[in-house]
Amino acid sequence: MLTNNKIKLLKSLDQKKVRRELGLFLVEGEKMVKELLESRFEIEEIFALQQYIDELDYKGDVEITAVNQKDLERISMLKTPNKVVAIAKIPQIDDAAKINNGLSIALENVQDPGNLGTIVRTAAWFGIKNVYCSPETVDIYNPKVIQSTMGAIFKVNVQYCDLALLAEKAKKFGVTLYGTRLDGESIYNTDLKKDAIIFMGNESKGMTTKLSQMMSENLKIPSYANADNDMESLNVSIATAIVCAEFRRRN
Amino acid sequence: MLTNNKIKLLKSLDQKKVRRELGLFLVEGEKMVKELLESRFEIEEIFALQQYIDELDYKGDVEITAVNQKDLERISMLKTPNKVVAIAKIPQIDDAAKINNGLSIALENVQDPGNLGTIVRTAAWFGIKNVYCSPETVDIYNPKVIQSTMGAIFKVNVQYCDLALLAEKAKKFGVTLYGTRLDGESIYNTDLKKDAIIFMGNESKGMTTKLSQMMSENLKIPSYANADNDMESLNVSIATAIVCAEFRRRN
Repeated sequence: MLTNNKIKLLKSLDQKKVRRELGLFLVEGEKMVKELLESRFEIEEIFALQQYIDELDYKGDVEITAVNQKDLERISMLKTPNKVVAIAKIPQIDDAAKINNGLSIALENVQDPGNLGTIVRTAAWFGIKNVYCSPETVDIYNPKVIQSTMGAIFKVNVQYCDLALLAEKAKKFGVTLYGTRLDGESIYNTDLKKDAIIFMGNESKGMTTKLSQMMSENLKIPSYANADNDMESLNVSIATAIVCAEFRRRN
Repeated sequence: MLTNNKIKLLKSLDQKKVRRELGLFLVEGEKMVKELLESRFEIEEIFALQQYIDELDYKGDVEITAVNQKDLERISMLKTPNKVVAIAKIPQIDDAAKINNGLSIALENVQDPGNLGTIVRTAAWFGIKNVYCSPETVDIYNPKVIQSTMGAIFKVNVQYCDLALLAEKAKKFGVTLYGTRLDGESIYNTDLKKDAIIFMGNESKGMTTKLSQMMSENLKIPSYANADNDMESLNVSIATAIVCAEFRRRN
């Protein structure tokens, strides 16, 4: 039932602190909840319009509560609520980051929810299973991040860990660390290894010097702007995607 | 002076209709206004904190009005206002789209302000001077679009026009039209011509059939997801960037 306490709980899940304390996060909208239901994520409860429930034809044992349009608007974080809101459980992941073969991404202090969500969506497209984030990176369970992953959150492991420790460990396992810098080596002139982690930095500051110095190589995406037409940088999710595409093209 | 009427005017510039009627748009923040001042765009008036004005050392003849923090907050569209708000003039561009040599981008009904802004920023990075938009594409002078271009709005010509007419005309001039479709030919197996327009469609619907059928080639970016890990699509600004990078790498 949608009690006042439940409404309060749902609304409080826009705060990272509450999400992490309760181990819960929100998933909204038809497409996203469909992906959630098909995923291995545990679901706590679903609130949906009666019409949605009738069409869903769901045989599982998750509690689904019918709500009216007005209540849906009260519990939704979206400007235009879309039929259904689910409470899902944050999966337990070991604090110690596992090093994986193949290609992974590591994000240092990425702040914008849309950027993180888009990077995870891009990772899924390129079959990248692991995205490591520094603790200061925006929370993957932030509702805006969840929505902008377009369901990729259920397909990619996103893990928060100390990136310097991750880098040290990865090097020992023979994984090559690629940073990105405006004064780096052109990605088109660099040997791109198969077992690799692509590191990307904060939107305005880039990577910290400490982490940057740990990289095996620092790459850049060449700019084709004229001198009078100079652009300082690419958006971080754009740069990540171009680098991922080039790794996949060659490996 | 910052009169009440001026405040009303500033606030009304978040509406496309008002912007187009008055031929004015807002530019906010230190970095963006710096780019505006260095551009060929005409400026109507600037409102800024006294400290900003003192540090600016500006010798031009644009009227700069000192405002206090409270007034700045009243006129700003940003959550965290950043020292300065400028009113700039929308440049007059012929309705008939000119066909250009080299690489251009055309956007059909892209709706998200962040996507359009990011695409224009990416275009500037890759030295792409012209972005054509269908009339239903989000307005480039929307404050959110302006901010997410990170200044690229002053370096790239963005023009609204009938894309079907543009496509017809471009073909006559020997420009190759590249669409993007999930069932297209891999971009890595396709000949990419130097004089080309890259067409991208709406976030959820892609390109209209009408326009899609006019393309010389339809490209896809190969996915590397597993069957059990299937992703439906990439974000439109991400796809645009990967395609632009590949054109530049080869031409």
